[in-house]
Amino acid sequence: MVKPQIAIIGSGTISENTTAYSIARELGEKLIDEGFRILCGGLGGVMTAVCEGARSSSNYTEGSTIGILPVLDKDLSNPFVDISIATGFSIARNQIIIASSDIVVSISGGSGTLSELAFAWQLNKPIISFQNTGGWSEKLANQKIDDSRIDTINSVNSVREAIILVKEILSEK
Amino acid sequence: MVKPQIAIIGSGTISENTTAYSIARELGEKLIDEGFRILCGGLGGVMTAVCEGARSSSNYTEGSTIGILPVLDKDLSNPFVDISIATGFSIARNQIIIASSDIVVSISGGSGTLSELAFAWQLNKPIISFQNTGGWSEKLANQKIDDSRIDTINSVNSVREAIILVKEILSEK
Amino acid sequence: MVKPQIAIIGSGTISENTTAYSIARELGEKLIDEGFRILCGGLGGVMTAVCEGARSSSNYTEGSTIGILPVLDKDLSNPFVDISIATGFSIARNQIIIASSDIVVSISGGSGTLSELAFAWQLNKPIISFQNTGGWSEKLANQKIDDSRIDTINSVNSVREAIILVKEILSEK
Amino acid sequence: MVKPQIAIIGSGTISENTTAYSIARELGEKLIDEGFRILCGGLGGVMTAVCEGARSSSNYTEGSTIGILPVLDKDLSNPFVDISIATGFSIARNQIIIASSDIVVSISGGSGTLSELAFAWQLNKPIISFQNTGGWSEKLANQKIDDSRIDTINSVNSVREAIILVKEILSEK
Repeated sequence: MVKPQIAIIGSGTISENTTAYSIARELGEKLIDEGFRILCGGLGGVMTAVCEGARSSSNYTEGSTIGILPVLDKDLSNPFVDISIATGFSIARNQIIIASSDIVVSISGGSGTLSELAFAWQLNKPIISFQNTGGWSEKLANQKIDDSRIDTINSVNSVREAIILVKEILSEK
Repeated sequence: MVKPQIAIIGSGTISENTTAYSIARELGEKLIDEGFRILCGGLGGVMTAVCEGARSSSNYTEGSTIGILPVLDKDLSNPFVDISIATGFSIARNQIIIASSDIVVSISGGSGTLSELAFAWQLNKPIISFQNTGGWSEKLANQKIDDSRIDTINSVNSVREAIILVKEILSEK
Repeated sequence: MVKPQIAIIGSGTISENTTAYSIARELGEKLIDEGFRILCGGLGGVMTAVCEGARSSSNYTEGSTIGILPVLDKDLSNPFVDISIATGFSIARNQIIIASSDIVVSISGGSGTLSELAFAWQLNKPIISFQNTGGWSEKLANQKIDDSRIDTINSVNSVREAIILVKEILSEK
Repeated sequence: MVKPQIAIIGSGTISENTTAYSIARELGEKLIDEGFRILCGGLGGVMTAVCEGARSSSNYTEGSTIGILPVLDKDLSNPFVDISIATGFSIARNQIIIASSDIVVSISGGSGTLSELAFAWQLNKPIISFQNTGGWSEKLANQKIDDSRIDTINSVNSVREAIILVKEILSEK
């Protein structure tokens, strides 16, 4: 009865008063409500928001959030991460976030998020992007990254839609 | 209230009817009894034993055991791993097991375990080795790996001693 | 008198009778003419073309081309690679190609190339893309990947332009 | 006609007036005399000595020495490295040094060298250790690291012996 592992990727620099932050926080809460485990890069912005949101779920238990850090020091995770995985692999740790996930959900995001979306495509992971959060999540909404896959990046406009889609994808596995 | 993360390293090929396997299984149970989280390499031998043992603790909850795999496929963990971290970094994933731990406990072990002991020494992690389980855990018991540290590898002869030492080291942090 | 290290990235699957392949081959030759060293991912398509081209330069000497492989087996490089670096880090080896380069030149490309472009942007490397070769090199020509840098991806239409730009960037370092 | 790639591993902290440093420098010179390429970790001690020695060979050409660095900054190699490979993978970069080599030669060494010897054993690389240089090279001379291989670590007392052995091993490949 292993919990599905959902990677949430996105901008590490957005502040609390943005739409993307609110969405990430709400997404964190709802994913835990559904009994999933959250994987992220362990740092700020979307990564903090999703872990913070997780804790407001009534279904939250310690161990629900995992931060996979670029550095060797496991104490550098944001304060809402339960399990810190310290890699020492710099931005190449993005491969681990993606490879360890069942589904990748993307919110806003710059070059770091873009490398994760590219890895997710290459490693054949289902991808869901929020098309109302700007950044690469919006630019790649409903797009293909290349022709190696027949699908496109699934795009959503709300946390509700995202949760429905996550559950649908998991049920088809 | 983040749980301490204890890495258990050791031979990936020992079979169930060995002393090392029994010790690893008992250690897994007792570590969970104490409320710690278990990190391992996610594969066989000692890694299976310690995760199997974890499940027999009355304190076990889903999420207590983490397997950090060398491969990209997260479904290749042993069946007692709760959280699979798929790295795709081959044996270099040993760096992650060590960096992510508060304490490293070593049982028997060949060349893979030896690389982990060397990393643990280099990354300044407290190390506890079982000196009655053969392999590199026995050879390096009470030894220094080099002169960069003033301590030696802590050595124990029983799970009881190991748990006492783990708690003592954590209390000094 | 260390040689500048120029990373050439691009599609690993294009065949010999494509524009991108011809450009990559010509680029390889001209980069060696100028006394530079070539870094690539060591596999097929653009990576083979650029190493093949290197050998047709009158300035070519053994050691001019380096292939940084995703696998642990160093014998899996394309036959025109002089120096095989076997990483065993899967697609995360892209970080090494980028970090080891003075300049990144991009030709066509799918998701693998896109992850390298994202890394190059994040690691603050000068980027030159061929805008007449399709793929992500064309899509990102003259674009910014995010707002963390003030420049855009430099774009060219010919090998001649690319070489001029490489020399100009190196002279400004 | 790819050059054999010989990894030289050993203490990163020994000073110039030690036996190990002299041996590493002489070894660097003789390996280049024979037409081999040198791989190392790119930093100080044995790594500097072997690259420095390479330059005193009459057979030296630019590109004879490769430094594979733990950091992302390729400018942090010792001044005798020709080709800097910047990994950003911390001490896990040791996997790359070993996987990219045809033969591993070990001089003195502490915990870092020990992790490389363990990786070399696990990746089935021929290993030659100097038993008169102290450290792990001496401790493991003529030993097996575990029972997964039938051979032992080849041990030598002089650069002359080492070169003979390197040539013999390469001729058997």
